[in-house]
Amino acid sequence: MLAESCPLPTGLDRRLREQLTFIVEIDRLKTVLRASPLAAADRRENDAEHSWHLAMMVLLLAEYADRPIDVGHTVQLVLVHDLVEVYAGDTPLYDAAARVGQEAREQAAADRLFALLPADQGARLRALWNEFEARTTPEAMFAKALDRLQPMLLNWMSDGGTWRTYGATADEVLHRTAAIGEASSALGDAVRTIVGEAEQRGWTRTSA
Amino acid sequence: MLAESCPLPTGLDRRLREQLTFIVEIDRLKTVLRASPLAAADRRENDAEHSWHLAMMVLLLAEYADRPIDVGHTVQLVLVHDLVEVYAGDTPLYDAAARVGQEAREQAAADRLFALLPADQGARLRALWNEFEARTTPEAMFAKALDRLQPMLLNWMSDGGTWRTYGATADEVLHRTAAIGEASSALGDAVRTIVGEAEQRGWTRTSA
Repeated sequence: MLAESCPLPTGLDRRLREQLTFIVEIDRLKTVLRASPLAAADRRENDAEHSWHLAMMVLLLAEYADRPIDVGHTVQLVLVHDLVEVYAGDTPLYDAAARVGQEAREQAAADRLFALLPADQGARLRALWNEFEARTTPEAMFAKALDRLQPMLLNWMSDGGTWRTYGATADEVLHRTAAIGEASSALGDAVRTIVGEAEQRGWTRTSA
Repeated sequence: MLAESCPLPTGLDRRLREQLTFIVEIDRLKTVLRASPLAAADRRENDAEHSWHLAMMVLLLAEYADRPIDVGHTVQLVLVHDLVEVYAGDTPLYDAAARVGQEAREQAAADRLFALLPADQGARLRALWNEFEARTTPEAMFAKALDRLQPMLLNWMSDGGTWRTYGATADEVLHRTAAIGEASSALGDAVRTIVGEAEQRGWTRTSA
């Protein structure tokens, strides 16, 4: 735990001290690198940046959800959706090998991470994370759609990004990002336009 | 504009294309460095990471607001509070020289940035930014309090961080972070505990 190296003052109220210790601990999310390249700099994105970007996308694109969503709740889902990666690490979408054991790793990370919080708040954050993962509520479906759409924009801005890194075909990209069209027909249409254009430019791998 | 180097497909619906172009543009926030050092790595924090961290703090610390706040709205305020820095840059809290002309720089940046969006959304984001800056609603007061508290935690984790960088005295730290106690007496108490302990450890400058 990060705060073990420099514990917060013991004079703090116990509940608040646990909360602040957790807040320090999740600073680690800023060091978890994703496969996606930034549009604005020549380096990979990290999970904290990605989570902020998704939250902004909720504010700007909520109007495209096919079923009405609670914007504030959807924002909460995307803020916490990658938290367990502080211990479990990121699993790139097109990296089949990395995906083996992902769920067990993330459940173990969730057990460890959320236990740092006062019980009521740990349970609340875990419920948000479970809701995102289960992808059954309109909010969770839309959050997952944006989680798929955001890296597509970064790939677009870097002449193919992870589509090239992992040699994905246009069909594979459409298959892996199907969650977008399932939550929003308008965004699903946009994805087909973007992937079609990316394929024409040679940014996706041509099927054998 | 970032997307000028690689415009999104013209086949996209015009409104959506403007929104996605804006979403690409704000990728720049990930490259705006703050003075604060991370707790989890040996580098400075950027604005996108900071904004995500504040949003998490809203979810976890809302219970300490002296006046009731709408959590979802407060999260929106912190998500957009630093957006104009994509053009205006960051202004460190303890850097008096950098603060000269800050407001004019940020207003000009806001004019330029929010104009990229469809008018209704540009107006909505600007209103959120204005509300944060005016700091009169309970939500804006609490958001500003967290904006002051978060770097204190990072300073704590790095044996003084920007308190040392800028040679701030304990009194100056308490003065510059007074917004915390104005929004939350409990968090204001915590700040006095933290700064008192930091002073004892020699992390703040001793007054002449």
